[in-house]
Amino acid sequence: MWFNNLFLILFIIVDVFLCYTSTRKHGFLHSKRFRSLSSSSPLKQYKYQTKYIEVPVDHFNFANQDVFKLRYLINDDYWVPESGTPIFFYAGNEGDITLFAENTGFMWEIAQEFKALVVFAEHRYYGETLPYGNKSYSDPEHYGYLTAEQALADYVDLITYLRSHQDGVQRKISPVIVFGGSYGGMLAAWFRIKYPAVVAGALAASAPIWQFTGLTKCEAFNQVTTSAYEKAAKNCPQNIRQTWKEINNLAKTDEGRSWLSKNWTLCQPVKNETDVSNLKMWLVETMIDVAMANYPYPANFLGELPGYPVKEFCQHIKTANLKGKELLGSVSNGLKIWYNYTGEAKCLDWSTEETTSLGYQGWDFQACSQMIMPMCSNGVNDMFELDKWNLTEYVTNCEEDYKIKPKPYFIIKQYGGKHLEASSNIIFSNGLLDPWSSGGVLRNVSKTSVAVIIPEGAHHLDLRESNKLDPPSVQVARKYYKQVFRQWITEFRETH
Amino acid sequence: MWFNNLFLILFIIVDVFLCYTSTRKHGFLHSKRFRSLSSSSPLKQYKYQTKYIEVPVDHFNFANQDVFKLRYLINDDYWVPESGTPIFFYAGNEGDITLFAENTGFMWEIAQEFKALVVFAEHRYYGETLPYGNKSYSDPEHYGYLTAEQALADYVDLITYLRSHQDGVQRKISPVIVFGGSYGGMLAAWFRIKYPAVVAGALAASAPIWQFTGLTKCEAFNQVTTSAYEKAAKNCPQNIRQTWKEINNLAKTDEGRSWLSKNWTLCQPVKNETDVSNLKMWLVETMIDVAMANYPYPANFLGELPGYPVKEFCQHIKTANLKGKELLGSVSNGLKIWYNYTGEAKCLDWSTEETTSLGYQGWDFQACSQMIMPMCSNGVNDMFELDKWNLTEYVTNCEEDYKIKPKPYFIIKQYGGKHLEASSNIIFSNGLLDPWSSGGVLRNVSKTSVAVIIPEGAHHLDLRESNKLDPPSVQVARKYYKQVFRQWITEFRETH
Repeated sequence: MWFNNLFLILFIIVDVFLCYTSTRKHGFLHSKRFRSLSSSSPLKQYKYQTKYIEVPVDHFNFANQDVFKLRYLINDDYWVPESGTPIFFYAGNEGDITLFAENTGFMWEIAQEFKALVVFAEHRYYGETLPYGNKSYSDPEHYGYLTAEQALADYVDLITYLRSHQDGVQRKISPVIVFGGSYGGMLAAWFRIKYPAVVAGALAASAPIWQFTGLTKCEAFNQVTTSAYEKAAKNCPQNIRQTWKEINNLAKTDEGRSWLSKNWTLCQPVKNETDVSNLKMWLVETMIDVAMANYPYPANFLGELPGYPVKEFCQHIKTANLKGKELLGSVSNGLKIWYNYTGEAKCLDWSTEETTSLGYQGWDFQACSQMIMPMCSNGVNDMFELDKWNLTEYVTNCEEDYKIKPKPYFIIKQYGGKHLEASSNIIFSNGLLDPWSSGGVLRNVSKTSVAVIIPEGAHHLDLRESNKLDPPSVQVARKYYKQVFRQWITEFRETH
Repeated sequence: MWFNNLFLILFIIVDVFLCYTSTRKHGFLHSKRFRSLSSSSPLKQYKYQTKYIEVPVDHFNFANQDVFKLRYLINDDYWVPESGTPIFFYAGNEGDITLFAENTGFMWEIAQEFKALVVFAEHRYYGETLPYGNKSYSDPEHYGYLTAEQALADYVDLITYLRSHQDGVQRKISPVIVFGGSYGGMLAAWFRIKYPAVVAGALAASAPIWQFTGLTKCEAFNQVTTSAYEKAAKNCPQNIRQTWKEINNLAKTDEGRSWLSKNWTLCQPVKNETDVSNLKMWLVETMIDVAMANYPYPANFLGELPGYPVKEFCQHIKTANLKGKELLGSVSNGLKIWYNYTGEAKCLDWSTEETTSLGYQGWDFQACSQMIMPMCSNGVNDMFELDKWNLTEYVTNCEEDYKIKPKPYFIIKQYGGKHLEASSNIIFSNGLLDPWSSGGVLRNVSKTSVAVIIPEGAHHLDLRESNKLDPPSVQVARKYYKQVFRQWITEFRETH
């Protein structure tokens, strides 16, 4: 069971916006991979009811009149509808909504203070919310309705229903504050941008809305990742950069591959150069995943990562200019800190076969249709090997794979790209340890659409439940959010 | 030819947002009727090139990958792309775009002063812009893509293309000011609301964006119409109200119907009560049309309406308490002022058979799907007969007619209803003589989304070419618009 828990850990503790830079070389189509959230079972740490609402498959046309049931989780313990106390609405992203509910402790923690209705809406085509059941991913006629605009329109319908639904109680209209992390954060920001009459404000945590063609250099993501490792130990990136060379060197001979398989305790021995490439690919992914999950406390509520896991890893390769088997041995020891924190794992499972689980399919399709986020590395300003970005090739692969025409510029046209001067009431929060901060909004874009920087934060740390090991920056951020929420609510009251 | 010219006049001089309140009684499905603009030939008063751009049938999904050619008219005589001078963009509405180009003189008149590129984009499913050619209206699979959201997304694509298109000239990004009248004005407002990064500001002229369920009382439209007649002559509405009674009275007997047919010089004699109902229906429509076209000068550039045609009509029935045949004779004389201004018409053609022309089909479908605008009259606070609004019945009729599920609340959810506090840079202009001002925005809704009231204005008079008979209010409004446009352009420059 050695090493096997990491995936479970990562699935649960972060929403899994996985960057994978080398897929094309190795026959994988897409540079962005999603590992299924839906295979993990929820914790049920927080209390909620599960409900469903019927929504149209297509909000924007009348050619397809199908409807489906969208799942949402709801807790009204503190809500006072007759006083119009707020609705805290999580804009579900690419996975089973129960996992986001379990990992967005901040919303639950402040719900009582705000007398808020807590709602987590599941994104169409994920979790239980499959518009066409098990045919949802069969062909473009079925999966073609998996778009951000449709998801937002689903949420508008749900909020409209929640506000209007009568159960004998005279209701005052409730301001809605929308929350989201990662792609959910993108949705939260876009929700306020597109539907300011529906949501009073948005907390868009670690939302890389600028990780699109022409907005951010493709190198940025891997440079930020590298910088997170450099912060952990100055020489760490340099040693990682050397690691690829040493692995490549060993990969050339049977003896070398055999050494690597044994020394790294690989569950599947590397038998040829392709295996070695896949091992490196897995390693890159894992380094990025851990950077995203680089939280200040052990993720011990389910998984078994230590606090600041990047630092723990880098401790093993902090000496300058490590080389050869000494370096690889140290890297192996570092990896064990991640994968064998409890000492239960028996070997390192680096198998990266694509899964056919729906969660994966969903994000893979989105990354091929609207959410095309350029990524590359050059091995000079980052700690990875050279990996170029080729939009044409990427698009061609997506066309073949999904029988659709990818739209790399759609998101910019739809949501304004860097021109958010007219937006209002959005908090864009980013942790600087988070690779995805590369595509995040790190400056105020209007008077009330503001950036919050959390220097010691990883991927939407601020949305998680509070922890005594939280750095002051995230504590201050959460206090600030509450203050801004109060302001949004007051403003809403003045106009309703 | 007597009376035949009116339709031509109206088609040309106003965009034809026709209210018709009694259709249901008479077997017509919808309370809003559209008379084809596409049957009239353009004037070619202004100079432009006709071009086409390929756009997707469906911007928001990937299930249908079809594309079609959208027509637009363009004039770059004054544009200086290398300096990024503005783009004046007309958001085409329900008809042939050439007619809107010919009837939006204001844009042409100020283009040189602003060094603006002038663009008129044709709305999908109208004029030449038929996504599926002559199959466009065959069934929901073909006409189901006729929605406001898709039209706006078409315009986004066109603007993106115009801004990016390279012809060897180094371009600076041009601010876009979007113009529109009536439904086009609604689109202009919604364009800025939804795409503030694409359009710097919007002039939404006579845009009844609040003429939807729950936003405005169904009586309002007919009350404003009545008030326009009352302004023309105090007793005019009272005499019109009496007219229906007198017609109903005559309708009971062969003799009465015969008298009416002869006295009113009807092209088609009224033979039974149904005919009489249709005649009244036609009369109501016409009274509303003329109220919309109640301009201060003769619409002599094509059609043959006198200046202030409502007043001209009411002059004939200004005496209090006219009754019987005396009243009907006076009404007939009044009608001749409208329909026989040139003295060429031989009889009054009141036939209101539905046309199958595409323009009509398009708006009829839109009025049945998204653009459901409640209208009613009570014969007490307005000058019409009792005509109730029944949403359920209306929706059922639309379902049967178009095999779709109408969405009476969609527009409110999509564009915010009365909550436009977060909007910016929109001028909502309304003439108080215009029936459609009932559903217009008559107050400032945010710091920069402001209302302009033109007391002596009919339906988007302000968008028309200037005329020496224009009332001061519209002259002042146009000056104000130019000042605001300059401000929008300056703001745009500061952020680009």
